[in-house]
Amino acid sequence: MKLCDIGNTNFSFDNADSFSVDSFDISSINEIVYYISVNHYWEKRLEHEENWINIRSLIDFDKYYETMGIDRIMCMEAVSDALVVDAGSAITVDMIRDSNHQGGFIFPGFEAMVKTYKNISPRLEVSLNFDIDLATMPKNTIDAISFGVIAPLVSYIRELSVKLPIIITGGDAEKLHTFIPNSSIDKELVFKGMKKIIQGQTC
Amino acid sequence: MKLCDIGNTNFSFDNADSFSVDSFDISSINEIVYYISVNHYWEKRLEHEENWINIRSLIDFDKYYETMGIDRIMCMEAVSDALVVDAGSAITVDMIRDSNHQGGFIFPGFEAMVKTYKNISPRLEVSLNFDIDLATMPKNTIDAISFGVIAPLVSYIRELSVKLPIIITGGDAEKLHTFIPNSSIDKELVFKGMKKIIQGQTC
Repeated sequence: MKLCDIGNTNFSFDNADSFSVDSFDISSINEIVYYISVNHYWEKRLEHEENWINIRSLIDFDKYYETMGIDRIMCMEAVSDALVVDAGSAITVDMIRDSNHQGGFIFPGFEAMVKTYKNISPRLEVSLNFDIDLATMPKNTIDAISFGVIAPLVSYIRELSVKLPIIITGGDAEKLHTFIPNSSIDKELVFKGMKKIIQGQTC
Repeated sequence: MKLCDIGNTNFSFDNADSFSVDSFDISSINEIVYYISVNHYWEKRLEHEENWINIRSLIDFDKYYETMGIDRIMCMEAVSDALVVDAGSAITVDMIRDSNHQGGFIFPGFEAMVKTYKNISPRLEVSLNFDIDLATMPKNTIDAISFGVIAPLVSYIRELSVKLPIIITGGDAEKLHTFIPNSSIDKELVFKGMKKIIQGQTC
């Protein structure tokens, strides 16, 4: 049995294998795969594959909201009290207290933000500097942009996390963790939530 | 004499006239125009127009940094102690104390952010809701995105502004002002800075 988290860009498996959604060959896997997908195209395409089991139908959506990303929901299923930050193509920040989802927000991922600045003006086309000091206001363009992407988000995550542990997951977890040293990284959070859901079903 | 602020999208004059950079006809103006431009193309094109006077050469760049947007510099020239937020195609946040620029950062403008979410996933294509309550964590996609764009930025602006007045300028000033009621709006800030620079020159 495998677990798979299908995102906008990758198929990510619980054994850490990852494949681009553009080139993934489903016939390469014969095992049973329990999966979640925020990717409409693949969710539709996998509907009739017998060994691919979508666990969407096992979720109690009353605890969340209908259009909430299923990867965010899995993170919420995995923990009972936390501020969970999933840093991927989007950065989602969700609060859970006593196993109740308190709500959350969506910020663009770092890669998406880099494109955004470039599209505003060619003068703003830079690579982000993840070594900036958030205690000092920037005085050059690269740092002014990097600071703009990182400082408001990090400051707000800290503000929200009073009395809650911060857990960071997703592909860019390490980048964000640098700025929130009292947080922990858990790259398995989505899969932990999936396991709980599947185990709940088979009991 | 006219003053003009040439941005990435518009020619903005001190009499409140505004024209798209794509369709502006320079021959429509015969008066002397003192201008600033963050728009490379137009800055180059206006070089040999006798009645268009670029005030870039009058700026003491040692007080700022070389690639800092000239519109941001004009705002700094206009005030001595403030946190200045210029909300346009980008949202710049600059701190000035005792007429010394302390640094600043660049956040994408609201329109650019809307495009960013859409590019991450068609599921995230929304219009921003400027009526959201920042005291309540969102539980639907439109609010989760609107909150993501507004809450971290607003919270951070408030944090930075301790003991400093917040002055908001730019086309989206009103939208931002809703969330920072103790700020003031000054749409003339760039022109005030330009006037100071020009007057300094002619004294």
